[in-house]
Amino acid sequence: MTRHTTTVLPPRRAGDGLPAHLDLHDVVAVGTRAAVAAWLQHTPDARTRADELAELSDRQVRSLVGLLDPATAADLLGSLDPHAAAEVVQVVEPAVAAGLVDSLDADEAAELLRSLPDADRAAVLAAMRVTRSAVVRGLLAWPEDSAAARMNPDVVSVRPGMSVREAVAAVREQTESAAESGEVYVTTTPTDDAGPVLLGVVSFRDLVLAGSDRQVASLMREDVVTVEPTADQEAAARLLHRHRLTALPVVADGQLLGVLTPDDVADIVEEEATEDAVRQGGAQPLDVPYLRASPWLLWRKRIVWMLVLFIAEMYTGTVLRAFEEELDTVIALAFFVPLLIGTGGNAGTQITTTLIRAMAVGQVRLRDVGKVLRKELTTGALIAVTIATVGWLRAWTLGVGPEVALTVAVAAAAIVLWSSLVASVLPLVLRRIGIDPAVVSGPMITTLVDGTGLIIYFEVARLLISSLGA
Amino acid sequence: MTRHTTTVLPPRRAGDGLPAHLDLHDVVAVGTRAAVAAWLQHTPDARTRADELAELSDRQVRSLVGLLDPATAADLLGSLDPHAAAEVVQVVEPAVAAGLVDSLDADEAAELLRSLPDADRAAVLAAMRVTRSAVVRGLLAWPEDSAAARMNPDVVSVRPGMSVREAVAAVREQTESAAESGEVYVTTTPTDDAGPVLLGVVSFRDLVLAGSDRQVASLMREDVVTVEPTADQEAAARLLHRHRLTALPVVADGQLLGVLTPDDVADIVEEEATEDAVRQGGAQPLDVPYLRASPWLLWRKRIVWMLVLFIAEMYTGTVLRAFEEELDTVIALAFFVPLLIGTGGNAGTQITTTLIRAMAVGQVRLRDVGKVLRKELTTGALIAVTIATVGWLRAWTLGVGPEVALTVAVAAAAIVLWSSLVASVLPLVLRRIGIDPAVVSGPMITTLVDGTGLIIYFEVARLLISSLGA
Repeated sequence: MTRHTTTVLPPRRAGDGLPAHLDLHDVVAVGTRAAVAAWLQHTPDARTRADELAELSDRQVRSLVGLLDPATAADLLGSLDPHAAAEVVQVVEPAVAAGLVDSLDADEAAELLRSLPDADRAAVLAAMRVTRSAVVRGLLAWPEDSAAARMNPDVVSVRPGMSVREAVAAVREQTESAAESGEVYVTTTPTDDAGPVLLGVVSFRDLVLAGSDRQVASLMREDVVTVEPTADQEAAARLLHRHRLTALPVVADGQLLGVLTPDDVADIVEEEATEDAVRQGGAQPLDVPYLRASPWLLWRKRIVWMLVLFIAEMYTGTVLRAFEEELDTVIALAFFVPLLIGTGGNAGTQITTTLIRAMAVGQVRLRDVGKVLRKELTTGALIAVTIATVGWLRAWTLGVGPEVALTVAVAAAAIVLWSSLVASVLPLVLRRIGIDPAVVSGPMITTLVDGTGLIIYFEVARLLISSLGA
Repeated sequence: MTRHTTTVLPPRRAGDGLPAHLDLHDVVAVGTRAAVAAWLQHTPDARTRADELAELSDRQVRSLVGLLDPATAADLLGSLDPHAAAEVVQVVEPAVAAGLVDSLDADEAAELLRSLPDADRAAVLAAMRVTRSAVVRGLLAWPEDSAAARMNPDVVSVRPGMSVREAVAAVREQTESAAESGEVYVTTTPTDDAGPVLLGVVSFRDLVLAGSDRQVASLMREDVVTVEPTADQEAAARLLHRHRLTALPVVADGQLLGVLTPDDVADIVEEEATEDAVRQGGAQPLDVPYLRASPWLLWRKRIVWMLVLFIAEMYTGTVLRAFEEELDTVIALAFFVPLLIGTGGNAGTQITTTLIRAMAVGQVRLRDVGKVLRKELTTGALIAVTIATVGWLRAWTLGVGPEVALTVAVAAAAIVLWSSLVASVLPLVLRRIGIDPAVVSGPMITTLVDGTGLIIYFEVARLLISSLGA
């Protein structure tokens, strides 16, 4: 009977008479391979695995590693984030570590090794099988955000002149670790001077469905979407995703280097969204999982923007000093300063987060600038009218007199409109001059609108309040 | 020779002597199927396709549709977002529309139909082949955010008792539109009373590699990860992704209903990230692509939070009025109000965006509350010291006297620490009581810190400034 592991139901039976709720301490105490296998089966969630692992002593981790075979090692390390996997690898001898890394697909192995300190990485690479370490070193040599850095170099390939029967035999001989993309690549035979040149692609499905005597060349699709190895990872992910491909070959000078799979796409999409989210909050991306970031790292990633914004925000002090006379005459004006500038910041933040995300996923492009402005200024006008009405009511209830109340209402409307303009133009202008608009954070918009909003406020006050006699 | 379509290079040759840079106007003017095929090949980008389509008149769209065959219809409509595809479908007769929708995979067809007004959807469904419309209606019946709403119901299945040879023959008979997941499901024969019960899975790869006389039952993996049809789409996507599965079967009472594929994962991950980004900016998600949102829709999605925050921010007016005497005595205190509250908001926004994203991707969980607090308060202290130093220098250069300068420095530090505390506790508390922490937007934190920050500021002033005689 099938054992379904569902998100809602626990697995229906435990293996080998072991208790169903083993934790990793128990596994190490029991000390059998069966216990490891049972734990892996009952603990599918990667975060739970990482948490239980983090609670083991180094000695316990070493015992655990002693219980792993290549399959369980691949299951465990492959499910962890590279930083957590790297911590396991760091507590064992290089020779043992090399065995663990060897159990992973080459792209996972490279990711794990990237997370190790340089000396440890060198020691593990030196202890790995030479054929394997050469492949992994090849991956490590590509820039970290390139398509090639993520590709799986183990590709199943056949020759165009083969019959389907011969191709199936050829596939059978190829390594187990080959990317499980469902695609078989048709290439020339690699020589000493040149790697395999990509000619076309057939799917396992095509091979299953075709007669065994058909020639591969007659089955293959020649029109293959490919990327250059140095192509941006995110662009490659979007290409793969938009074309609904099952795999994207990475090709240089016609030669097939490896493939990206939809798995990688989800990883890349998630990482990019995380980086953008952090940028939108006015900080720099962390490069490590949050819980692994030390306070010093967090400080470094945050303090630059904090200081830039703090210094920019100082401008508000200059503005307020310039209007000291007005403030002294009508102290009630001061009461509404946080309300008005806060509202301007909110209006702008709503726009930038929506717009920048729409640009990131390709819904909005530079040519849409006219549509965006029309849309945002109309929306801004609607919001301005709503906010001005409520603002006027609020000033009224504070009993500050009709002139100040009117000033607050008019200034609120003007600030919302101004903020809408700044927030919709700025991301598009930055994209135009080649800067990623994701740097326009909520805090940046808030800061921009604070100082200028104050000027609007006091100019409106001068205009509308008779005792300030403009 | 292979035609590689790369992200960087244009395709190497055009088809059939047609000019390489046909746009969609030209295609309609030329009016041949070859022109459509050439355009599709040279215009792989979905957004460019949608843009060119948007520039056609309804009559031109109808001419274009007349030139489509099932393959080109599937290529074009399948690449567009469902809203853009729905617009094409809406300008043609229901019978023609039904033909277009029929060309799509069932899950794509359902997504497109969800974007149509109710009457149009009913008309198209009525005009579709009955067997097909029944499948699509089945998908439409699931809740929009359930796993089942996204699944492809066309699954390739075989019986456990078949030999590999028989299984290959069975697969060959099954529909072309079956999900291209590389997996073949082993099920019981469906009866009138019950659908096919899932027994296990074999990959096309297994079928290719096994001898033709092997029995399917001996090849299949029985330990299959599955989800319930009503499982949350996002949870299903994470399951599929974490386990690096090539497909996730949707199963109810043991019966196989369809599969989710890694393709769907990337879609879901992207949509969820977009919704969270918009929420982080203090607005509600749009449910339609940005450029399709009318100003009224944008207003509705934004005004609720704008008003809530505006009304909450009014509290700052009350605080300032309560400290009117202090403000009157030392007007210089007013100069630093925007700077101090802005900085508090920035410090909090940096934390919430990072923390909420870390929670969304599963890096931080409730049990980590202690670690998060320790990390954020330490980081907050580091930032507080930095900011206080710079704030003191600024107050000094404004020439406001040593007491006010000290007040600004101490208040800045206290506000940064306070904001760090609020921003790190709030998301965790919300998660604890079952509310999605993504509602804690930058604007919300800013608003919370503005009023409380002012109280901190004026209390510090009372303490440190002699003329305010505490």
